[in-house]
Amino acid sequence: MTTLLTGEKNTKTLVLASGRAHPELAKDVARELGVDLLPTTAYDFANGEIYVRFGESVRGTDVFLLQSHTAPINQWIMEQMLMVDAAKRASARTITVVVPFYGYARQDKKHRGREPISARLMADLFKTAGADRIMSVDLHSAQAQGFFDGPVDHLWAMPILTDYVRGRVDLGNVTVVSPDAGRIRVAEQWAAKLGGGPLAFVHKTRDITRPNQSVANRVVGDVEGRDCVLVDDLIDTGGTIAEAVKVVLAAGAKSVIVAATHGVLSDPAAQRLSECGAREVVVTDTLPITADKQFGQLTVLSIAPVIARAIREVFDDGSVTSLFDGNS
Amino acid sequence: MTTLLTGEKNTKTLVLASGRAHPELAKDVARELGVDLLPTTAYDFANGEIYVRFGESVRGTDVFLLQSHTAPINQWIMEQMLMVDAAKRASARTITVVVPFYGYARQDKKHRGREPISARLMADLFKTAGADRIMSVDLHSAQAQGFFDGPVDHLWAMPILTDYVRGRVDLGNVTVVSPDAGRIRVAEQWAAKLGGGPLAFVHKTRDITRPNQSVANRVVGDVEGRDCVLVDDLIDTGGTIAEAVKVVLAAGAKSVIVAATHGVLSDPAAQRLSECGAREVVVTDTLPITADKQFGQLTVLSIAPVIARAIREVFDDGSVTSLFDGNS
Amino acid sequence: MTTLLTGEKNTKTLVLASGRAHPELAKDVARELGVDLLPTTAYDFANGEIYVRFGESVRGTDVFLLQSHTAPINQWIMEQMLMVDAAKRASARTITVVVPFYGYARQDKKHRGREPISARLMADLFKTAGADRIMSVDLHSAQAQGFFDGPVDHLWAMPILTDYVRGRVDLGNVTVVSPDAGRIRVAEQWAAKLGGGPLAFVHKTRDITRPNQSVANRVVGDVEGRDCVLVDDLIDTGGTIAEAVKVVLAAGAKSVIVAATHGVLSDPAAQRLSECGAREVVVTDTLPITADKQFGQLTVLSIAPVIARAIREVFDDGSVTSLFDGNS
Amino acid sequence: MTTLLTGEKNTKTLVLASGRAHPELAKDVARELGVDLLPTTAYDFANGEIYVRFGESVRGTDVFLLQSHTAPINQWIMEQMLMVDAAKRASARTITVVVPFYGYARQDKKHRGREPISARLMADLFKTAGADRIMSVDLHSAQAQGFFDGPVDHLWAMPILTDYVRGRVDLGNVTVVSPDAGRIRVAEQWAAKLGGGPLAFVHKTRDITRPNQSVANRVVGDVEGRDCVLVDDLIDTGGTIAEAVKVVLAAGAKSVIVAATHGVLSDPAAQRLSECGAREVVVTDTLPITADKQFGQLTVLSIAPVIARAIREVFDDGSVTSLFDGNS
Amino acid sequence: MTTLLTGEKNTKTLVLASGRAHPELAKDVARELGVDLLPTTAYDFANGEIYVRFGESVRGTDVFLLQSHTAPINQWIMEQMLMVDAAKRASARTITVVVPFYGYARQDKKHRGREPISARLMADLFKTAGADRIMSVDLHSAQAQGFFDGPVDHLWAMPILTDYVRGRVDLGNVTVVSPDAGRIRVAEQWAAKLGGGPLAFVHKTRDITRPNQSVANRVVGDVEGRDCVLVDDLIDTGGTIAEAVKVVLAAGAKSVIVAATHGVLSDPAAQRLSECGAREVVVTDTLPITADKQFGQLTVLSIAPVIARAIREVFDDGSVTSLFDGNS
Amino acid sequence: MTTLLTGEKNTKTLVLASGRAHPELAKDVARELGVDLLPTTAYDFANGEIYVRFGESVRGTDVFLLQSHTAPINQWIMEQMLMVDAAKRASARTITVVVPFYGYARQDKKHRGREPISARLMADLFKTAGADRIMSVDLHSAQAQGFFDGPVDHLWAMPILTDYVRGRVDLGNVTVVSPDAGRIRVAEQWAAKLGGGPLAFVHKTRDITRPNQSVANRVVGDVEGRDCVLVDDLIDTGGTIAEAVKVVLAAGAKSVIVAATHGVLSDPAAQRLSECGAREVVVTDTLPITADKQFGQLTVLSIAPVIARAIREVFDDGSVTSLFDGNS
Repeated sequence: MTTLLTGEKNTKTLVLASGRAHPELAKDVARELGVDLLPTTAYDFANGEIYVRFGESVRGTDVFLLQSHTAPINQWIMEQMLMVDAAKRASARTITVVVPFYGYARQDKKHRGREPISARLMADLFKTAGADRIMSVDLHSAQAQGFFDGPVDHLWAMPILTDYVRGRVDLGNVTVVSPDAGRIRVAEQWAAKLGGGPLAFVHKTRDITRPNQSVANRVVGDVEGRDCVLVDDLIDTGGTIAEAVKVVLAAGAKSVIVAATHGVLSDPAAQRLSECGAREVVVTDTLPITADKQFGQLTVLSIAPVIARAIREVFDDGSVTSLFDGNS
Repeated sequence: MTTLLTGEKNTKTLVLASGRAHPELAKDVARELGVDLLPTTAYDFANGEIYVRFGESVRGTDVFLLQSHTAPINQWIMEQMLMVDAAKRASARTITVVVPFYGYARQDKKHRGREPISARLMADLFKTAGADRIMSVDLHSAQAQGFFDGPVDHLWAMPILTDYVRGRVDLGNVTVVSPDAGRIRVAEQWAAKLGGGPLAFVHKTRDITRPNQSVANRVVGDVEGRDCVLVDDLIDTGGTIAEAVKVVLAAGAKSVIVAATHGVLSDPAAQRLSECGAREVVVTDTLPITADKQFGQLTVLSIAPVIARAIREVFDDGSVTSLFDGNS
Repeated sequence: MTTLLTGEKNTKTLVLASGRAHPELAKDVARELGVDLLPTTAYDFANGEIYVRFGESVRGTDVFLLQSHTAPINQWIMEQMLMVDAAKRASARTITVVVPFYGYARQDKKHRGREPISARLMADLFKTAGADRIMSVDLHSAQAQGFFDGPVDHLWAMPILTDYVRGRVDLGNVTVVSPDAGRIRVAEQWAAKLGGGPLAFVHKTRDITRPNQSVANRVVGDVEGRDCVLVDDLIDTGGTIAEAVKVVLAAGAKSVIVAATHGVLSDPAAQRLSECGAREVVVTDTLPITADKQFGQLTVLSIAPVIARAIREVFDDGSVTSLFDGNS
Repeated sequence: MTTLLTGEKNTKTLVLASGRAHPELAKDVARELGVDLLPTTAYDFANGEIYVRFGESVRGTDVFLLQSHTAPINQWIMEQMLMVDAAKRASARTITVVVPFYGYARQDKKHRGREPISARLMADLFKTAGADRIMSVDLHSAQAQGFFDGPVDHLWAMPILTDYVRGRVDLGNVTVVSPDAGRIRVAEQWAAKLGGGPLAFVHKTRDITRPNQSVANRVVGDVEGRDCVLVDDLIDTGGTIAEAVKVVLAAGAKSVIVAATHGVLSDPAAQRLSECGAREVVVTDTLPITADKQFGQLTVLSIAPVIARAIREVFDDGSVTSLFDGNS
Repeated sequence: MTTLLTGEKNTKTLVLASGRAHPELAKDVARELGVDLLPTTAYDFANGEIYVRFGESVRGTDVFLLQSHTAPINQWIMEQMLMVDAAKRASARTITVVVPFYGYARQDKKHRGREPISARLMADLFKTAGADRIMSVDLHSAQAQGFFDGPVDHLWAMPILTDYVRGRVDLGNVTVVSPDAGRIRVAEQWAAKLGGGPLAFVHKTRDITRPNQSVANRVVGDVEGRDCVLVDDLIDTGGTIAEAVKVVLAAGAKSVIVAATHGVLSDPAAQRLSECGAREVVVTDTLPITADKQFGQLTVLSIAPVIARAIREVFDDGSVTSLFDGNS
Repeated sequence: MTTLLTGEKNTKTLVLASGRAHPELAKDVARELGVDLLPTTAYDFANGEIYVRFGESVRGTDVFLLQSHTAPINQWIMEQMLMVDAAKRASARTITVVVPFYGYARQDKKHRGREPISARLMADLFKTAGADRIMSVDLHSAQAQGFFDGPVDHLWAMPILTDYVRGRVDLGNVTVVSPDAGRIRVAEQWAAKLGGGPLAFVHKTRDITRPNQSVANRVVGDVEGRDCVLVDDLIDTGGTIAEAVKVVLAAGAKSVIVAATHGVLSDPAAQRLSECGAREVVVTDTLPITADKQFGQLTVLSIAPVIARAIREVFDDGSVTSLFDGNS
């Protein structure tokens, strides 16, 4: 006999489980990966407390827990944390929190005193629950990566959006438009992907040269007669975007396509966007697009291939970094 | 000059702030303490994310943040954590989380594999957010105190309930009844407070002497012709309690008063309890008793004096321990 | 050349080491696993300080450190913590603390103010020393699992005990008896395993219907002429159990077998149990049963197979969960 | 006798100590506070290791440790961490790290994969050393506040700068200019403080409407014949600012004053700025302005009053929040 | 009304409690401080588990928990940790662990691979339990201070010992002797305190010039006809010291007094020391000197005044540092 | 389909990266291991802030980050911490900090009050940044291993030094000399390795028998006519060593070779050592020996083989412990 007991370790195991927030996306990601979702029980008690349980062993596995932070957002965040705790106590080897849309990401600083920094708090809560890594798509600010004490895989939806839009416009006549001055860098990247056409942006300012005046939106750059693509990271109630579409059209644009990663589409976004004059509004399904959020001009692209490939890479310790915003 | 700058420190300051879950209780506690609630802004963004901000400085103060975990329970827990984070970043001296009803307290162990231990997780999340201490009323199991890494002030609602009930029954003819075998110790304490009368309990068992048989509730102890007081820690959907009332009445009880600390009263509790035959159902307002939860026989007692006195004690480093379940 | 140096990783290694508290059990577990115990030096200095050292490398291995918390209990707990520290500093890959009997588990809440919560403290101390996981048998309360911030493998001795008892009684005439009202659920499980016979329990109460009266034990359920099996989680000084045996016999039982997982058997348990009238007292060897604890009616069953199988499962990331109290 | 020993606690004590990076500022802050700096020994060993020691007791005091992160920046950061450790081990009551200029603040996100997030790392290192709070002036991005797990007092140098500039320009003819599109919000605040005049900004872009073209700076807004104030948070090597000055002058500005909080002024900033045509360059002394960094047009304003008032407020738990960027 | 509730805070409160290891010392320290010891319950359960509880409130107080780590050392260390946990959960303001003799201090490094670093582990365990500060006397190595993540008050027994010895020797004829080469620095300090006489040391070496030879102790320095004082930090089994006394006497010393801080005096120290020829053996009572450890030549000095003064200083945030080994 | 996705895991990957402090050593270690160094970008910004980035993926790899803490020591320590952070955020599997010379190791205790314990602080900072393990050569005090909360691989340069010296002296005539009384144990080990010759040491004392007198170095042991080897752990400014060489020669030694692990060689070490009369000064290249530190008698041995073998062992979970100072 010997003091060492050796075992085969030539396999490692990936498990994908989903909360209740966005099961369609979870299924799509699972299909892309070629696995079934881990059977998972989740329901609410009469007073709203959540119960979760995994239906199969996760011992020694690399668990990916997918939940998109849609409304009721606090419920789904809490459900995901409970799933992390369950996986930790069930001896998962590693736990990756997959949040296609990361809730509270916009609350990333104190605008005034006595506010929380909610995006940091969320990162700390997930860490405490037992998360080893976070995977997300197009965070509102890049600094939010620094809020988590561990690796953050920051995915990039742009290739999916640009591939689609490329087939919908005359590349020789396209102008990429940013809805405000703070997003011009993203518009530049879009323009490069669409063949190097001109840029424009909407100046949502109180007359840039006259502080303390009433707001007057105007377009900077040439949009007259152009096929315009208006780009942003997310569309919440749609006010800013719808306003920008109108301004661009008023400035003589031939057509406007709106493209954004996250379709939050809180009420009354559907109405505003359907009536603003945009030819098409393109988002990905990082968030569920329920029936009440849909409207005629809306196109929803699948983010599942990006997430599935990223999970695969993480699992394989791969070096393909093209999915990431420059990161590997 | 000197290298030391000295300052007066003969005062310390208490601040009481409330989330949106149960403002009436917060106001009552504030009134008992003789302070106003700290002005606090809290609202939901369109996608359900919560925004909170304190309206006045909390620098150097002892902050007590009151939130009762009623439905929608995950929203209110998250709101309270955001308030803790805001207080921490605004340089509060100490932060006490006051949860008259502690959410997820019933999920205090793994009944089966691959479940979370949610009550422990909540304790850790509050700790991470910045809580120094937790104050709660009648936790579901005493072990839950051990889930928080710090002091837990565990308050006791019984004196309020027994004082009220004492005036509603003929002390010479009262029998205290436990709805199941696991709560007999509490019933004993009640009986002692009500003058030492006899005890009884309802055996919710599959015939205790015949396992694997259908359930048959029966009363152990003498209830015939007695004024019965049925006691428990909480009433959720009311099924168990209503059943127990019926069994006790069927066994010949003259009348039944139900008394419990926490009136969760999830639907259909109001209907069940109003129709079960109980003469009166007494709870405290650790949770808000909204209109839809009320019914004719319901009496709601104020828990505010107990909480206010406990806060005062903590603030004064007092030694009066009578409010506590044996703790100081 | 390349920037990557790759190595074979097709094996992983398990190491089992034991403190001095219960070497017989450690040897039995090692034999079941088919390994030798890791050579380990451990002795006391003149003033009682413990010295420990592993005799072989544990670098990169999965170390299981077995110690049962028998008297002198603080010495053995400390020795195990020192072993954890040594394994951590010697680059073990994972460290599992195996405690067949978990010391201080009964101190799992504050009965009164100004007490410690010792069971939580032990969990935190082991975590600090470097433990990744705890494996234990039949914890006093299930909530104690929540005291450790990590996986707890909670093993279940009942199958070993019921298998043995099944051959010692007339299954058609057996009644399972709980020594008090708080353990009825365990008795139910026993009864199911023994063929579904009737249950009974001893009411160690101050006359359940008369508080503040002197104690009067009585049997609830039918034991007359029956082969009774009295079950509990542990036997310490044996007072409660011996009393229960007498009451059951006085109620007309034909015979009584006592069965419990942990044979703490502190003095004068041996005398009490040998004289109480029980036909047989069955425990497992989660704790060492030294000569002074033995008596004629005592039967000690080996817990080693259960622990060995659990270690094997953890090492293999197995999904067999039958050893566990519902957990995997 | 009694079990309690009570002591007077009517004073608390503030101590201010400084590292070697910027002793002049420390002296100025001490003078404003009316204290002497704590005598502190600090020197380098032959191999560059730093030795620090406080000359008087800091037991029970509120210690403020001032160090500005000027070059050699890693040495001064390390020295400050060593001071924090010394204060912690010497039983300081609280430790506030005062960093007028916070090193590595610009490395607040991953621009590409496999980079550190250095600003977060610095926050964690100071926390580990023992810092309870950070006080800084005009952080590069507001999100950096979220990197520290505790209160951050974020001071605001603008009032000092605007007060000075107000006396140097014809308020009726002033235009505030931002050196790029990302700083327009700051320019707006400046304009409001200077009486509400018009804004302008320099577009450092590859022709905003033509991606992938060579850079062409141009002024947006009306600067012709105006007294321009060019504002930024810091001036490092001065390239961007000097370029902006030239562009504004080329666009017909009557004069340009440059104003920034932090005068990093790395070589060749002095030469560039002295030759760019600016009438005056105004910075504060958050960083030491050594002789080699000075030039004729440079004006250095004292930040000491702001820091001293903030320290005083923190010490007094004051509610005056005007020093802070909206925070208290 | 107001949102602030202010309270008087002109007193703070010190509480001194003791475990069961060395109650006499605790009483002496309490008497020096002018307080009673906090009433504390502590006993062992039948299986050796310890139960502790404070008899009065410690809420908001500065608690000093005194326990000396004598045999059975693991029991007393565990008892002290349980007391720390109880104080933390009972809302003590600060907790200072007072260990006149710090157990496991000699295991401060790995002599060989696969050993623990027990002195570091003890520091971490106390920290985890809730200790804010450690106070100890004459740690075996100064590096051990670095094992605790917080303030360590390192007291110094030498003044007590030298004051006593000064009256027992002819200062004009005294030689201080170190029992080995590693303690010469302490002997130098002793010599300085005793008037500057000559030094000597015993060379417990394998003939310093001949490695791998048998040991031959010899005296370096002049002891012939001198009154010798042999000094060390602790006396455990007394072998080294007794040997040194004999060698010094054999070298012609007129008399030998042995002086050490810690009288561990494990068997057979009493016999060895009483028979070695020393005129007197002087220790302090950092450890209890039970009857079996005493012998004719033994003198025990009280360490209580030093500990009491140090506690007083810590409580008063005093600056008197003379008690400390150079620290404040 | 299945819920498990399994992957091959038959390889693991080692990556070696180096900071800028000692690239030659890094290259040598890489060559010994048979790999290329990971391409790494590192430079200073104008104000001294460091930028680092790895040029290839480190996801899932075992990263070894080599940096020797030479002057400017704080810069190189900080650079290494930034590399650790980058590796952590890039999903390295484990991170080992390789510090051939560990900066601040000499500041391992408080000599006086209000000093930091810098060696402990460095250990904590590396831990916080994300280091899992530290590998170093000949730490100044063995206790420093206890400062890091994790495994420390403590390598031993002596075999390299003794192998070299063995060929440079007449083994029959060699005497090993310690430069002071505190290093005799090391000298003993040297003597054993060199064939068991006699020992000597230099007494740098104020006349050991006369405290408070001026220093008078003298040799204890026989060196007359002997080939002496003077051994130490490091040579900083060379004062003590040069003095010792002179004393030994003055005592009649035939020749003196100086041997030490770490050649800090701060100015004016080169001059002192070249003029002291030593025949040869032998160090390893744990630190870079730049041109200004070199002199005629200096011999530099490569430490790379020892470090490479240790890395290989750690990577292979090897059991060869001969490289280590008794540890594995």
